[in-house]
Amino acid sequence: MEYSIREATAEDMPSVLELIKELASFEKEASAVEVTSNDLVHDGFGPEKRFHCFVAETNTTIVGMALIYDRYSTWKGPIIHLEDLVVSEAMRGSGLGTALLNEVVKYCANQGVKRISWEVLDWNEPAINFYERKGAKVLRDWDVVHLDAQGIKNYLNNL
Amino acid sequence: MEYSIREATAEDMPSVLELIKELASFEKEASAVEVTSNDLVHDGFGPEKRFHCFVAETNTTIVGMALIYDRYSTWKGPIIHLEDLVVSEAMRGSGLGTALLNEVVKYCANQGVKRISWEVLDWNEPAINFYERKGAKVLRDWDVVHLDAQGIKNYLNNL
Repeated sequence: MEYSIREATAEDMPSVLELIKELASFEKEASAVEVTSNDLVHDGFGPEKRFHCFVAETNTTIVGMALIYDRYSTWKGPIIHLEDLVVSEAMRGSGLGTALLNEVVKYCANQGVKRISWEVLDWNEPAINFYERKGAKVLRDWDVVHLDAQGIKNYLNNL
Repeated sequence: MEYSIREATAEDMPSVLELIKELASFEKEASAVEVTSNDLVHDGFGPEKRFHCFVAETNTTIVGMALIYDRYSTWKGPIIHLEDLVVSEAMRGSGLGTALLNEVVKYCANQGVKRISWEVLDWNEPAINFYERKGAKVLRDWDVVHLDAQGIKNYLNNL
């Protein structure tokens, strides 16, 4: 299969949003996606670049993406977070996930960061196996915590 | 007890580093802290501000801190991550953790973000109970994944 990995452009954001929604559906959170493709254009390609995105393309169809941004570890200093690594369902098992992750790791190594972090659902064994084969450590004793928009409102009301 | 919460300055970074190390020891990872106070000054107060920090102070002693930075959710847009919320051991149970978290939530609400995220060790029941009382959700099915510095090196060597 012929494909290329390249940096995303603003014009790719509608396709990237489709992949974001595909992953959210797989994660049983389809309705959680509030971001629009205009938001992605603004946030990734506007005055304040909040993320960096790679896309995988066959002919002229975008079939995968990886979206990363800077974080800060008080143990390691600047690190990079991989927010989403998505390969369209029809293309899974074709090596695209590895090709995208290769680009991410090369980019992060060039930035000199001491860690790449991400998050995974504990029932997503194919993803966990893939990441562990790549040398990543799944920290099963660390849980993610969220205070969501309603939680923030409630918090302030209770002050 | 008299205390004040204020924005951290570069001069606070040695004290903030002590609190970072205190938390890392509690998390059984004391040797994982590679950051120096010079790094914190550079990364928080240099040309590229990678984090925002609040400190809790009694008289002139810093006894707590909260360190946050921007992240990006492909579901919610700009969000803020709470990397560390630390109260010095001698001062725990004094309301300082709540006072620091209040400042963080007010700051995040002013920024208009739709989520505050953080991470917690699944055996740290006092922290989990504290966060849940504040309305946060501990997502026990989401695990944190790390590719560390050695993992990045190995990854590139295997390409």
